[in-house]
Amino acid sequence: MALVKPGVRAQAAYTLRAPAARRKLNQNECPYDVPAHLKQIALDRAAAASWQRYPEFAPIRLVERLAVHYGWVPEGIVVGNGSNELIQATLSVVLGQGDAVIAPSPTFSLYRLLTGVLGGRYVPVPLGPGFEFDVDRLVEAAVRERARVVVLNSPNNPTGSALPAGAVERIVSDTGALVLCDEAYQDFGGPTAIPLLRHTSRVVVLRTFSKAMGMAGLRFGLALAHPEVARELAKGKLPYNVNLVTLAAADVALEHAALFAGRTREVTATRDRFLPRLVRVPGLDVFPTEANFVLIRCRARPASEVFRRLHDEHGILVRDVSGSAELADCLRISIGTEDDMEAVLAALHQIVGPGSEAG
Amino acid sequence: MALVKPGVRAQAAYTLRAPAARRKLNQNECPYDVPAHLKQIALDRAAAASWQRYPEFAPIRLVERLAVHYGWVPEGIVVGNGSNELIQATLSVVLGQGDAVIAPSPTFSLYRLLTGVLGGRYVPVPLGPGFEFDVDRLVEAAVRERARVVVLNSPNNPTGSALPAGAVERIVSDTGALVLCDEAYQDFGGPTAIPLLRHTSRVVVLRTFSKAMGMAGLRFGLALAHPEVARELAKGKLPYNVNLVTLAAADVALEHAALFAGRTREVTATRDRFLPRLVRVPGLDVFPTEANFVLIRCRARPASEVFRRLHDEHGILVRDVSGSAELADCLRISIGTEDDMEAVLAALHQIVGPGSEAG
Repeated sequence: MALVKPGVRAQAAYTLRAPAARRKLNQNECPYDVPAHLKQIALDRAAAASWQRYPEFAPIRLVERLAVHYGWVPEGIVVGNGSNELIQATLSVVLGQGDAVIAPSPTFSLYRLLTGVLGGRYVPVPLGPGFEFDVDRLVEAAVRERARVVVLNSPNNPTGSALPAGAVERIVSDTGALVLCDEAYQDFGGPTAIPLLRHTSRVVVLRTFSKAMGMAGLRFGLALAHPEVARELAKGKLPYNVNLVTLAAADVALEHAALFAGRTREVTATRDRFLPRLVRVPGLDVFPTEANFVLIRCRARPASEVFRRLHDEHGILVRDVSGSAELADCLRISIGTEDDMEAVLAALHQIVGPGSEAG
Repeated sequence: MALVKPGVRAQAAYTLRAPAARRKLNQNECPYDVPAHLKQIALDRAAAASWQRYPEFAPIRLVERLAVHYGWVPEGIVVGNGSNELIQATLSVVLGQGDAVIAPSPTFSLYRLLTGVLGGRYVPVPLGPGFEFDVDRLVEAAVRERARVVVLNSPNNPTGSALPAGAVERIVSDTGALVLCDEAYQDFGGPTAIPLLRHTSRVVVLRTFSKAMGMAGLRFGLALAHPEVARELAKGKLPYNVNLVTLAAADVALEHAALFAGRTREVTATRDRFLPRLVRVPGLDVFPTEANFVLIRCRARPASEVFRRLHDEHGILVRDVSGSAELADCLRISIGTEDDMEAVLAALHQIVGPGSEAG
């Protein structure tokens, strides 16, 4: 135990307690499973493969397909066991002991955890009062701390806020940092930094198949970067990091990209119908979102009570993020089906609406 | 590019050029595919699962089954996307900038690569003249360098040599290091360090399903350690690191462990029939092995020529490891089927045997 780095021991492990629930709106997953016939195509390919053999060292055909899909060059793409692995790979090849990582706060907790494990120095920069990105403060902090990396999750988990247009360009030009753009939720809204890759080697863009592509269970993500940077990032990931079934499933998903794009449009349409109605629930603040989730602040009742009653009385599991000061009283609700969101609205009216005192 | 750590840029990437071949004896894979009916059980479970959902945060049932199989406690087990991920996780939570990692040389190249990426200092300690472990020198180097980690791959890739009994105990007691025992090939021979886990928190044992369990394509491995150490190691791995199909396949493999154990006995029996005949091929040195591969040194012909002719004339792909000085003229040959090894013997006789000058 004494051999484990103090910085690691001090970190809280990434963890999630998730009781079972009829409506699972706690992990920003796609509400629809992959259609059975597409699963079958992927599984048939998997059944025909040699399980005792290592997967392809470089899955060339898949990478070429990804390049077409995302509009970038194959040599600039690195695939990962979820985009989480590529956050880790990027930080591990760039961060030295004590190097600063700037990130908005609040944001996805894994950035802080991995920075700590790697011996870096994590410097959170508060988002604005409505959780909007404050680009001036990010630039100022990056310059002051001589940041090695600025991590931007846009749209940002758990707030839903997206970067303003031009923000990444500005951070690249005004700082010396590598800008790691985690675009896990970009399919649902906000700008993408992919076009910038042609102009700078200081941007890495991460994408995942866990959200809009609806394959969180299979673990697939990718990093897009200048080919020279991609070659270095690849040293931070493990050889044979993506298993043969996931490679097959990612291939099948890209062959049917239109289907997944259609489902993403359904989710954003559901969100856009849900939000104006959510705003009308009394006793809640609703933060603007471009993602497939929305952050609310409970004013009429404690968040922990709303969380518990959503689950116990309505079978709705959301994410209680109220543990940190800046997210006091906040819950994060994933966008599910139309039916899910009707249920959420009815439940919230009952729990926090007028007359809820009786509840 | 300037943002990438110099220590990373200096590293050669882990890579493998592998031309197609009828007999694939270059990656120490199992010669037998997972039986079709077992694949189908795993794939049926995968088809029934929700792909859009994240895998279980902690796969409790599988971990309990692993605990029974390996004779250790569930709280002391961490599962990984191949054991490679757990090498990385272990090093990342323990190694600070400049901390020494001691490992025998030659050994599996990933230890050096990951140590370099993490900013550690890799100190190779030569194996003996017949590639046997030199425990005295390992202890001496670990003490001199105040090593944070000693990595022992036993049986050792690519030499096949196993640790002598009692070696790990001695390194634990005579040094202050964490002893990382990579037992990827232990199913084929040599001692295991698992029983030591009851007595020390300075041992981590890694096992994989890629070799004896014949599932390299699915990527599954595990670390076994004192529960407190396991909890810290888990911080160095990613959440949701093992996909749902691999979790199902690992479960199925454990349900049919006797089948895999039987196949492992077949491979070791093939090896034990093959080795005495290999020794009789003139113009070769054969190093003792307890693994599912054997290292040879080509005396009569250059290794590169033997490698090329095995492939081009006989459809046999082995691993050319002759690039480093200590492995000059060496090739590594995985143990395949009986038929594969007959073909290897016939081919070697033809290439390096008497009269081979005419070849």
